[in-house]
Amino acid sequence: MNIQKLQQASQQLRDNKTFEWLVVSVIIISALLIGARTYPIPDTLVLLIQWLDIGITLLFLFEITVRFIAAPNKRRFFYSGWNIFDTLVVVVSLIPIENSDLALVGRLVRIFRVLRMVSIIPELRMLLNSLLRAMPQLGYVVLLMFIIFYIYAAVGATFFAHINPDLWGDISIGMLTLFRVMTFEDWTDVMYETMAVYPLSWIYYLSFIFLTTFAFLNMVIGIVVNVLEDEHVREREAQDQAEGKATLDDLILEIRSLRKELNNLKPDS
Amino acid sequence: MNIQKLQQASQQLRDNKTFEWLVVSVIIISALLIGARTYPIPDTLVLLIQWLDIGITLLFLFEITVRFIAAPNKRRFFYSGWNIFDTLVVVVSLIPIENSDLALVGRLVRIFRVLRMVSIIPELRMLLNSLLRAMPQLGYVVLLMFIIFYIYAAVGATFFAHINPDLWGDISIGMLTLFRVMTFEDWTDVMYETMAVYPLSWIYYLSFIFLTTFAFLNMVIGIVVNVLEDEHVREREAQDQAEGKATLDDLILEIRSLRKELNNLKPDS
Amino acid sequence: MNIQKLQQASQQLRDNKTFEWLVVSVIIISALLIGARTYPIPDTLVLLIQWLDIGITLLFLFEITVRFIAAPNKRRFFYSGWNIFDTLVVVVSLIPIENSDLALVGRLVRIFRVLRMVSIIPELRMLLNSLLRAMPQLGYVVLLMFIIFYIYAAVGATFFAHINPDLWGDISIGMLTLFRVMTFEDWTDVMYETMAVYPLSWIYYLSFIFLTTFAFLNMVIGIVVNVLEDEHVREREAQDQAEGKATLDDLILEIRSLRKELNNLKPDS
Amino acid sequence: MNIQKLQQASQQLRDNKTFEWLVVSVIIISALLIGARTYPIPDTLVLLIQWLDIGITLLFLFEITVRFIAAPNKRRFFYSGWNIFDTLVVVVSLIPIENSDLALVGRLVRIFRVLRMVSIIPELRMLLNSLLRAMPQLGYVVLLMFIIFYIYAAVGATFFAHINPDLWGDISIGMLTLFRVMTFEDWTDVMYETMAVYPLSWIYYLSFIFLTTFAFLNMVIGIVVNVLEDEHVREREAQDQAEGKATLDDLILEIRSLRKELNNLKPDS
Repeated sequence: MNIQKLQQASQQLRDNKTFEWLVVSVIIISALLIGARTYPIPDTLVLLIQWLDIGITLLFLFEITVRFIAAPNKRRFFYSGWNIFDTLVVVVSLIPIENSDLALVGRLVRIFRVLRMVSIIPELRMLLNSLLRAMPQLGYVVLLMFIIFYIYAAVGATFFAHINPDLWGDISIGMLTLFRVMTFEDWTDVMYETMAVYPLSWIYYLSFIFLTTFAFLNMVIGIVVNVLEDEHVREREAQDQAEGKATLDDLILEIRSLRKELNNLKPDS
Repeated sequence: MNIQKLQQASQQLRDNKTFEWLVVSVIIISALLIGARTYPIPDTLVLLIQWLDIGITLLFLFEITVRFIAAPNKRRFFYSGWNIFDTLVVVVSLIPIENSDLALVGRLVRIFRVLRMVSIIPELRMLLNSLLRAMPQLGYVVLLMFIIFYIYAAVGATFFAHINPDLWGDISIGMLTLFRVMTFEDWTDVMYETMAVYPLSWIYYLSFIFLTTFAFLNMVIGIVVNVLEDEHVREREAQDQAEGKATLDDLILEIRSLRKELNNLKPDS
Repeated sequence: MNIQKLQQASQQLRDNKTFEWLVVSVIIISALLIGARTYPIPDTLVLLIQWLDIGITLLFLFEITVRFIAAPNKRRFFYSGWNIFDTLVVVVSLIPIENSDLALVGRLVRIFRVLRMVSIIPELRMLLNSLLRAMPQLGYVVLLMFIIFYIYAAVGATFFAHINPDLWGDISIGMLTLFRVMTFEDWTDVMYETMAVYPLSWIYYLSFIFLTTFAFLNMVIGIVVNVLEDEHVREREAQDQAEGKATLDDLILEIRSLRKELNNLKPDS
Repeated sequence: MNIQKLQQASQQLRDNKTFEWLVVSVIIISALLIGARTYPIPDTLVLLIQWLDIGITLLFLFEITVRFIAAPNKRRFFYSGWNIFDTLVVVVSLIPIENSDLALVGRLVRIFRVLRMVSIIPELRMLLNSLLRAMPQLGYVVLLMFIIFYIYAAVGATFFAHINPDLWGDISIGMLTLFRVMTFEDWTDVMYETMAVYPLSWIYYLSFIFLTTFAFLNMVIGIVVNVLEDEHVREREAQDQAEGKATLDDLILEIRSLRKELNNLKPDS
């Protein structure tokens, strides 16, 4: 009985607007603290930040506990990626770490707390979900692009490695260099260097730029078409619902019933 | 009675085409003067420009007064952002400033007078308004992008600050550096520098570029979809009006009246 | 009588496919000669090129004369921008120029002969025309962009001229520098230089980039919407023609005639 | 009889899912080996790779033979570009090459084996085909862009060759430099150099950037419109099929049959 009451209280607290705003403001404060730490600050402020940090961690622990108790199905609670993420961030924040290496991990986790902003604002969560959902549809274009990168990097590492090992040393360095070429970042420096040895190597760079630009364009257009189509479907549904107007099928039914009446007329005459 | 006559005269003057063209040409002259001042010019010309400038300021003062008198509701006059802007520019131009620091402010205000071009040409005002109106719809994408920037800048300032304080000194410098990376401006120099210490830091840059490019694309597509939808709605309305043609509902009414006549037929036979 | 025959013969020659192909091939040869001249070539080849060049000029003179004679209305012939362009290119090619300064002009005119390719291939002419036609529709966006450039260049020339006169010396140099910033070409170098004096000048650059990117996007979207709309209109017209199918209006006519027959039925019974 | 049985067995093997997956995994292994070779590896591993490579070549030879035997029409087999490509890759892999120059060709062929991934995965093949199919439709835009490049390169090589022969030496170098300018890669360095001699040469660069950006935009929009149209047509067809709903023509037929029945009614009365 006690547990059920606790669950009800938790649900009330979780859905409470004031509590939600409190959590959002604490996330913002936590983000500001992270920013403040990157500035040179006096020791007293560092101490204050550490105390505040402990307070934030405890409030986050409290909030996740409330949400866990409020959940009707405990197992399903961890089906949501966002819940797992929130729990992990709180748990890792709780571990006391002083060692310099782990201290960095601790700071990293504190930085990731800013991401809780996304998990708590529904519009942002929807936006990120829609971004992620668009990903797999583009899977084959990404695969094609990876194959293009791989082949060009293999050719580059085979022919240009002796010219500049820093750029073409092995296939993974070559792929990084090609990504740089794709962003047009000092790509002519890379090209002029290899053209000094292989004068025709401009074909390699230009064909790569054309292929990737074209594939990238294709990807972008793919997203646009997807988005517009979703938009279309939603629009049409909205329209169909809103109208509730006559359809051609309604009309045919009308005419058929008209014909039946006509047929009833015949025997009368 | 005198005031009402003044108001009527003001309205006539305000709506006068010649007066409008006079104001536009004075704005263009004022813009040219601003350009001329950036060149090394003889002292006599400087003097001429100063006299012209006083003339322009007085004409602008006259014009804003006319528009204020012409306005039927004096309070509403200052509801429009453009009117406030125009008034401010004129008022600040009037303040006599000789001090070197304030002289710069004076020149700045004179430069902003070119913006009056936007306030006076309706097409430009509409264009700017439509740009500003598109902004809030993109609010959440901008917020998401800011969160991405903030998190990456925090990570950058935490791990790379000791490598190059000029680029990663604190979180605000880090965000500026990340904006530079997003524009692909010498981003590999930034990356190679940190890769010398953390060989895996390319993951940091590449993931950042992918995320921001994707979010940016999303934003652009969002604008396109918005614009196309507005276009659609306007088009459909225009079409519906232009047609005035038969709709399915008209048809059903026709058939129903037909059926009624049939029913009238039945008892007759 | 003689003149009319000449005109008929000219028209036949002008519309002759072989003659057209001859002109196209001569233009291509002329383009190749222009390319060849930029390489170091032996003197005998230079002589050959000069003789070929005279031949090309004479053939172009012949072709424009044929087209002029073939034209039914001599005055209208010069209404077309392309005809004026063709005539000018031929006339300037005819002027014998030896002086080193004018020789360059002569070479320039010969280079512009390649543009005759556009004037002679209808698809290219249409493409260029459609590009030019899209221009004025974008007029106000271009004007807004110019105002943005002008204001920022004026601010830049006022505040940054003493930092680097090569980049911000006067308003026109400033506009060139801003165009560079818009293309993201080493824009951080420009920014870091002024940030050393005015630490807050990053606001100037970032706001400029946001404004111009946004305006540019708006321009692109404007073109897309225009193109798609034209496409739509054309598509709908094609559809309407192709269908010739029943419309709702046809249906209503059918039903009305049905009703008339019913009415005819009534008196009968 | 024996041959027919062989063909049937080949077809069964070719269409076998396990065999397909075997070939795909071998292609992936082959791709990994190519990557591995670009790293400094111990000699024993080199030997292992060479043995694996022979195995891969033999399996590819086996697979292409199976597909050739399975083909019902031997001549048609080589009509498909993908089959020719696959055969060539296998044949060149078979040639034993030790000479250093040809060894590179051999490695190149082995790299191109990764492209077999595209030929074997239907979705990738479709994607590439659709990319290639979009090409000719853009033919005239590409031709226009080439003419723009050619004219500007001719002008550049004529006027700027004495300033910097490395960038403007002849027309082909000039076109490469212009491509660099189009990608905004250190284009201001190129411009400032020529502006030192011809102060007005910024017109040359800016007009080139405007023209190519505009033409490029036009190309992109052309692709988008094409893709959207294809999408539209497919959508409409799908809709028409899915509906099987009443069309206006069905309705008119209904009404006509109704009228016939009415006419049958008339003589009765």
